[in-house]
Amino acid sequence: MNVNGRPYRTIWAADDGVSVEIIDQTRLPHEFHVHRLTTLEDACEAIARMRVRGAPLIGATAAWGMALAMAADSRPEHLQRARAALQATRPTAVNLAWALERVSAVLIETDTGDRYATARRLAMELCDEDVEINRRIGEHGLQLIEGFWNRGNGKVFHILTHCNAGWLATVDWGTALAPIYRAHDAGIPVHVWVDETRPRNQGAALTAWELAAHGVPHDVIVDNAGGHLMQHGQVDLCIVGTDRTAASGDVCNKIGTYLKALAASDNGVPFYVALPGPTIDWSIEDGLTGIPIEERDADEVTEVSGRLPSGDHGVVRIIPEGVSARNFAFDVTPSRLVTGLITERGVCAASREGLSTLYPERSRAAF
Amino acid sequence: MNVNGRPYRTIWAADDGVSVEIIDQTRLPHEFHVHRLTTLEDACEAIARMRVRGAPLIGATAAWGMALAMAADSRPEHLQRARAALQATRPTAVNLAWALERVSAVLIETDTGDRYATARRLAMELCDEDVEINRRIGEHGLQLIEGFWNRGNGKVFHILTHCNAGWLATVDWGTALAPIYRAHDAGIPVHVWVDETRPRNQGAALTAWELAAHGVPHDVIVDNAGGHLMQHGQVDLCIVGTDRTAASGDVCNKIGTYLKALAASDNGVPFYVALPGPTIDWSIEDGLTGIPIEERDADEVTEVSGRLPSGDHGVVRIIPEGVSARNFAFDVTPSRLVTGLITERGVCAASREGLSTLYPERSRAAF
Repeated sequence: MNVNGRPYRTIWAADDGVSVEIIDQTRLPHEFHVHRLTTLEDACEAIARMRVRGAPLIGATAAWGMALAMAADSRPEHLQRARAALQATRPTAVNLAWALERVSAVLIETDTGDRYATARRLAMELCDEDVEINRRIGEHGLQLIEGFWNRGNGKVFHILTHCNAGWLATVDWGTALAPIYRAHDAGIPVHVWVDETRPRNQGAALTAWELAAHGVPHDVIVDNAGGHLMQHGQVDLCIVGTDRTAASGDVCNKIGTYLKALAASDNGVPFYVALPGPTIDWSIEDGLTGIPIEERDADEVTEVSGRLPSGDHGVVRIIPEGVSARNFAFDVTPSRLVTGLITERGVCAASREGLSTLYPERSRAAF
Repeated sequence: MNVNGRPYRTIWAADDGVSVEIIDQTRLPHEFHVHRLTTLEDACEAIARMRVRGAPLIGATAAWGMALAMAADSRPEHLQRARAALQATRPTAVNLAWALERVSAVLIETDTGDRYATARRLAMELCDEDVEINRRIGEHGLQLIEGFWNRGNGKVFHILTHCNAGWLATVDWGTALAPIYRAHDAGIPVHVWVDETRPRNQGAALTAWELAAHGVPHDVIVDNAGGHLMQHGQVDLCIVGTDRTAASGDVCNKIGTYLKALAASDNGVPFYVALPGPTIDWSIEDGLTGIPIEERDADEVTEVSGRLPSGDHGVVRIIPEGVSARNFAFDVTPSRLVTGLITERGVCAASREGLSTLYPERSRAAF
């Protein structure tokens, strides 16, 4: 998407023909800085230090890391070492293992001398594929938004989103934000209510930055405010992303998503979830009992980071000594509260039947 | 309530027989500091700078301010000047005007030479009355908690609260927290989930501090987490306060209360609101259309204050330049989501019928 009027992806081939460049997300939202990766070690460091984050982008960076590794040394033992090093950066991200498996399987079958060129081509393909999936989510979501907006006599169309499911989490477009970018670019007057998304504030820091950079009108609100806005007709549509979707259409996403879905249901506001097919977990029927919820370090609740008046980065403790805190990272929104799912293959009901229509081959394989 | 094992009110007569002392709430939660008020100007400054806050405590401090003013000069013109100066400190708080009217009406009818002693007695009476109202709320709430807890075979009883309706907002006990303190003191093993309550974090800063100081087990959570906890049976009861209650039982409270009430309803968790009778607005039937919602400065959303690693107070900006924000301060929870109201006269249904049973004289007067 655009930054200062210029289109960017989150990762791209550098003009030296070997290196790859990324937007350094550790410096966002207060600074836009392009960071160059030239070696396998650079790629590992970028993933581990979260210069890149978001499952699809981690996968893409890992594929590029394999290409950088092959540029230096394409012998089999180095191929295995590179794969292991990249895998060790963030062992829990599913896309990381998936991307490494996909690239490695091809490289092992490739002559040593051709491995670098092949790895580079595979990395580019993987990035383009991610962009294409998200572009399609955006296209289907655009039609949905157009349909709702056409009923409103040209009025500003207010969309609420939670956390960051934007282009910064993918190679481009994002998932939940893809339909919003498409609608904005198509001339629909969208305005986005951005939940700040405590505790890590990815809404305030990343989603709002993305939208501002691309010129999409928006306002950050505290996570408490969405219900009030819906009660007063200030939200026309909710779109959020998902970390894992059960076969039943139950959706696991950033903590607080469930509360917004309840408010949407209570006020007749359509509540959609945008997702690429691979996030569907066909093995889980009941999201509430089947999807484990990560509990993270309480420091994320007790401390808030941002920019000090001096311009430096700073951290303040908002909770006094002697007070304890807990930090649950996700919640599950039952399918009964989800109006529909927006996928790269189209929009469907949040149910096994709905998903089976779009993914007949995956649905069958699960039984 | 207790601080370091010693019982405190938020305001009390100093041992010099003239001055009054308060807990300086601008230094909380990171520092417990007793601040002395000796003059009318001291009292005005304490209210205006929010060394004291919370409607009941503001009223009590204003009454004490009148006493301090009369100690210096009890002539009629000074009485009027004192009242005007105190009224100007925070012109929107209803309790402030109410307390000043009540004290002034008596003082005008009192001989100049007796005004100081009378004002001092009135201030003490007003404080004692507030404590008594909250003590009764606590008593009725305790019975409620006992009833629910007795069904649980002695297990820890989890109560969720939002914002600060604790003793720091009143002279003692608080409203929503009064039943919790009573239950804890009575030996019921309560544990409190404290919503941090963005944007001003009064839950994390004040409620958690209060509970920790009195020794009540608790955990601070982000405002997003309550729904997840209720889905998993981790909340037995919700109790919140209210800034204004419609005659229908609709409740206006800190932004985000409505979302918790929705989650409680969706999960069969009892949702109670604690309130002193004077917060009932008998002139409003529909809270959603009848109660105006204040929109406050966006800085409260974009900036977070706390303690820096150095120990100094600091402020960080969490939202990048170029990003806009909105800040709605309250929301309205419809009575259909409120299980009951806990008042100083007992517990009733959140409805005109329920309230009329407890306040027949007020209910009649409104028609």
